Amino acid sequence: MPHINFENDLPGIRSAMAFRPETAKPLSELAEVLLRDENGLTRLERELIATYVSYLNDCFYCHHSHGEIACIYADGNRELIEQVRKDYSTAPISDKMKALLNIAAKVQQGGKNVDEASVRKAKQTGATDLDIHDTVLIAAAFCMFNRYVDGLATMTPDDMSTYPLRAKQIVENGYGSHIYTSKQPTVQL
Amino acid sequence: MPHINFENDLPGIRSAMAFRPETAKPLSELAEVLLRDENGLTRLERELIATYVSYLNDCFYCHHSHGEIACIYADGNRELIEQVRKDYSTAPISDKMKALLNIAAKVQQGGKNVDEASVRKAKQTGATDLDIHDTVLIAAAFCMFNRYVDGLATMTPDDMSTYPLRAKQIVENGYGSHIYTSKQPTVQL
Repeated sequence: MPHINFENDLPGIRSAMAFRPETAKPLSELAEVLLRDENGLTRLERELIATYVSYLNDCFYCHHSHGEIACIYADGNRELIEQVRKDYSTAPISDKMKALLNIAAKVQQGGKNVDEASVRKAKQTGATDLDIHDTVLIAAAFCMFNRYVDGLATMTPDDMSTYPLRAKQIVENGYGSHIYTSKQPTVQL
Repeated sequence: MPHINFENDLPGIRSAMAFRPETAKPLSELAEVLLRDENGLTRLERELIATYVSYLNDCFYCHHSHGEIACIYADGNRELIEQVRKDYSTAPISDKMKALLNIAAKVQQGGKNVDEASVRKAKQTGATDLDIHDTVLIAAAFCMFNRYVDGLATMTPDDMSTYPLRAKQIVENGYGSHIYTSKQPTVQL
């Protein structure tokens, strides 16, 4: 049961966003740039970082929500998403992505944990300054989103069939604030 | 030395924001609502939560920047800010603020750490659902801002006289994105 009365029955972050549209707007806009910008990292790469950090933070709602979105961008390759969660070093992803996921894991532990050697490795594998910037900020932002979702004890759907439906909506329509601020869910997720 | 080339000499979060204005805009708007909204918690209370969480995250730039802003709202009572950092339980603040800082500290550790007893205590001391929401999101947001600042190894001014100057600008003008996206610093902080 949520820690506060959201006055809606929406799941996860959507309940908190509908409760407080003033903060939902910039939060949605931040997600839209960080996870869907086509400059630099691909949408799959961005969602993999979000999924992995949410998994490290043990945020069930977020790592399943973003895992399903990543799965769509990976043409349905659910095993890839699971490999990235469990041990990205053996996953069939680029060396650049491995170096960026290493940085993301350090950010999850704390900003000061990001060391020069990890950044150098990322650059050697082809990561640009923008890629590194976006990786650090995606990882940092999910340390916020995960805490927001779990810190208010928002409702987590246990019907796993709802996550792919919601993921499809996000892939098609984006993280626009219009999705979050409505008190009426577009799907029962 | 910063991990990436920001192409500017701005300090702290401002260097990263000038580098990536697309994300600076929603980040600034989020700070503006969370730290300056006059609905619910006071600006002093909001900045104290930000300062305390940044201190727990050991983010020198953020806890000094927001500590100086809090100090202005506290009519120059620097000792109050220091007491909140070191041991808020003995600081001359309301029981409600003590209960909210307790929640903020739990969010800093991880969202799942926020327990029902802590939320009940906050409600018993007069905290509304909005106060609790904003406390959780301020604490979560500073887990992001702190990681952004330190994860990119942004430059931290060691001349402490610059922090009060910058704080005065924020108190007067807010966290508007126009402040962050200019490559020219308004003061050398």
